[in-house]
Amino acid sequence: MEVFEAIKRRHSYRNAFLDRNVPREDIEKIILAGIRAPSGKNAQTTSFVAVDNKKLLEEIGQMHTMKAMRTAKAMIVCIMDKNPQAVYEGYAFQIEDCAAAVENMLLAITALGYAAVWIDGWLRLEGRAEKIGKLLNIPQEKFIRVLLPLGVPEEKLEQKQKKPFGQRACFNQYNIRF
Amino acid sequence: MEVFEAIKRRHSYRNAFLDRNVPREDIEKIILAGIRAPSGKNAQTTSFVAVDNKKLLEEIGQMHTMKAMRTAKAMIVCIMDKNPQAVYEGYAFQIEDCAAAVENMLLAITALGYAAVWIDGWLRLEGRAEKIGKLLNIPQEKFIRVLLPLGVPEEKLEQKQKKPFGQRACFNQYNIRF
Repeated sequence: MEVFEAIKRRHSYRNAFLDRNVPREDIEKIILAGIRAPSGKNAQTTSFVAVDNKKLLEEIGQMHTMKAMRTAKAMIVCIMDKNPQAVYEGYAFQIEDCAAAVENMLLAITALGYAAVWIDGWLRLEGRAEKIGKLLNIPQEKFIRVLLPLGVPEEKLEQKQKKPFGQRACFNQYNIRF
Repeated sequence: MEVFEAIKRRHSYRNAFLDRNVPREDIEKIILAGIRAPSGKNAQTTSFVAVDNKKLLEEIGQMHTMKAMRTAKAMIVCIMDKNPQAVYEGYAFQIEDCAAAVENMLLAITALGYAAVWIDGWLRLEGRAEKIGKLLNIPQEKFIRVLLPLGVPEEKLEQKQKKPFGQRACFNQYNIRF
């Protein structure tokens, strides 16, 4: 799929997935897209656990009421460090690194005919990231920041509406009016 | 350009740009790719100032020793809030929102035959974000987080090498060995 088309079609999918497996070959293509994302000083701070084991998918999916979580055929779990190393003048960029990797993966997911949703805040509540971390054997010094449940979407949805160009952008002098 | 091709070709370009303008039509396409990125609760927190005024480009470019900054034909400046609003259970996601938008824009830049580099840490030192913010009339409550200098690259470069799959990813149980 053409890159602008993928950017336009990508959307957050929270509904049910069809009962069709996501082959490992596709999961690997998606994660490879994430691996190829830029990272501060090329430190490549994000790591990924792909979940396709049925029992694990069920255990994790049952923690959420969202259909996409409960019917996901695979999940990609993005992991970072609790105490990130500074890579430039005292600064670490692992949040940016992870977000760029996630966006690449969402575009890859779209291009391959799957759908997903970027789950972040939900993981931070009620010890969910820790519970899932235990199921996946994540080391103590790391934590789960983002989770993408994915599969073949049951419904065709579109990207949510975005504000018009003039409410987000301008040329040379800031004159954005909300 | 096909999305996986763009993901593979995208690279950080710090060298000189050719003396060829970037038409506004292309700048708008690039920013539209950024606008279409996902954002926490679709809050669309990132705003963009595209710089293509020669005097401004020169003033900003001269602050850096990097050739890409000194010869940029356009810059895309990404802006966020100093005190971001929480959108989910007390959490704000503007860093992620901005990073996803930047990644979309980097892919659009690649697809259109341009090159760029994600500048972040440099802006945080020596009051640079503030100095550039004054030149662009950024409001007091906002700040510049990321800047992308762009143009037609003088040299053909490739993406920096990434660690192999097994050092970044695994299936079902964390067993990544560095």
